[in-house]
Amino acid sequence: MTVETVSLNRSHGGTQGVYKHVSRETRTGMTFSVYVPPHPDGAKLPVVWYLSGLTCTHANVTEKGEYRKACAELGLIFVAPDTSPRGEGVPGDPAASYDFGLGAGFYVDATQAPFAQHYRMWSYVTQELPELISGHFAVDPNRQSILGHSMGGHGALTIALRHPDRYRAASAFSPIVAPSQVPWGIKALGGYLGSAREAWRKHDAVALIEDGARFSGFLVDVGDADLFLTDQLRPELLQRACAQAAIPLELRRQGGYDHSYYFISTFMEDHLRWHAARLKA
Amino acid sequence: MTVETVSLNRSHGGTQGVYKHVSRETRTGMTFSVYVPPHPDGAKLPVVWYLSGLTCTHANVTEKGEYRKACAELGLIFVAPDTSPRGEGVPGDPAASYDFGLGAGFYVDATQAPFAQHYRMWSYVTQELPELISGHFAVDPNRQSILGHSMGGHGALTIALRHPDRYRAASAFSPIVAPSQVPWGIKALGGYLGSAREAWRKHDAVALIEDGARFSGFLVDVGDADLFLTDQLRPELLQRACAQAAIPLELRRQGGYDHSYYFISTFMEDHLRWHAARLKA
Repeated sequence: MTVETVSLNRSHGGTQGVYKHVSRETRTGMTFSVYVPPHPDGAKLPVVWYLSGLTCTHANVTEKGEYRKACAELGLIFVAPDTSPRGEGVPGDPAASYDFGLGAGFYVDATQAPFAQHYRMWSYVTQELPELISGHFAVDPNRQSILGHSMGGHGALTIALRHPDRYRAASAFSPIVAPSQVPWGIKALGGYLGSAREAWRKHDAVALIEDGARFSGFLVDVGDADLFLTDQLRPELLQRACAQAAIPLELRRQGGYDHSYYFISTFMEDHLRWHAARLKA
Repeated sequence: MTVETVSLNRSHGGTQGVYKHVSRETRTGMTFSVYVPPHPDGAKLPVVWYLSGLTCTHANVTEKGEYRKACAELGLIFVAPDTSPRGEGVPGDPAASYDFGLGAGFYVDATQAPFAQHYRMWSYVTQELPELISGHFAVDPNRQSILGHSMGGHGALTIALRHPDRYRAASAFSPIVAPSQVPWGIKALGGYLGSAREAWRKHDAVALIEDGARFSGFLVDVGDADLFLTDQLRPELLQRACAQAAIPLELRRQGGYDHSYYFISTFMEDHLRWHAARLKA
């Protein structure tokens, strides 16, 4: 696999890189960022995966996430993929729809035309990119964790629930916890996976838990001034499912905070410390 | 003076705001950002001014500067103005020239046509905006300090040297220290102030020091991988001038760092602690 370096910048004692490659899954060029903290030669480091929300690319968290200082201190590699395939021939016009298509891959492998050919973000994020990262960076594949924001929180929760042995920790900012029950999710899962709702359940954190999936525990932050809280995010549904399944959930409602990176950056360090404690246990 | 609120976001316990007003100096709309940390009702807080570099607006440091956590802890208000007037009728096409005109006001009051009418960033940043900030935010005007990056480092140094009683601290990332001697500065000072070089000296930190201006001391960080270091920034000229004038200068050459916000954000907390120590002394 060929990886092209787009940029490298020294930051907080480590190196922030941005890279491009041609994905076998999406059949497009894909861009991602990797922060490598200062570390001894030959060391293999734990890796934290960050999945972004609707309309975002790798760049939003890379520029605004304020994760590098904590990653440098804690010795964490931080990987931020894009949120969809992009480029010529990829369907899904963001000018027509910010919540479906480009920038809105929803971390599923589409089964419906015309999306099935390129929209394979599930396989990209869980298989192809981890292999590439393991091959090119000083990561310890036995110490991985995952977090995300909004649509990316949905991705982090569902991926963790389906790979409880691979990820030692999972957390989310403002996640979509039950896409089958909210407008963003119904539109996306219907569009990518078709109208047969049974196929949606393995991409719905609450449904996965209801169907028996388990994880060691989640940290979830939501802002109580988040305009999407009551109609799209609905953290109480995750709270109920976790309680019934005896999955430890630390759900924090942060007063005055909204859905933006001003919120995420405030609590990023908390999340990374929570991940580091589990990655190093 | 009417100030329009563009956005308000809770962050790191305080409030990040972006505001617009019509400037009497530039005769244009001007946008700026202000972070107000958590504070007791009625408290008057020290204020740190941050001046940005070529091509930037208030948004670059607001999104990428990683200053809010430290400002919240230290109780500092952080103000980020724009770098030039903008809008219909303002000369200076950034597509033709990134280092003159829009995004490149150089913190001077232009005397040359067609720039003199709108390009009044010196008076805007030293008079109009401080009055507006004092009138609208919980600042203690007796506790102000200033820092900046590149062209904004030039602004911070020259403004501090000409107002040693107003600003209790001044620092810079990658500053232009002697604009009269480097291509960026020769172009800008010539274009805004005309070819008579005597008029440039009060907008040149090294020349100001040679002419007798003094300040209590500077903290300056430069990256040794900064592509502009040797032909545009030339920190050794400031080092020599400060040594001859017995001005304390802490000049740090940071290994591997470049000219970007990845560099600035790494050392922002250091600078804010340095400012806070002097603002609270």
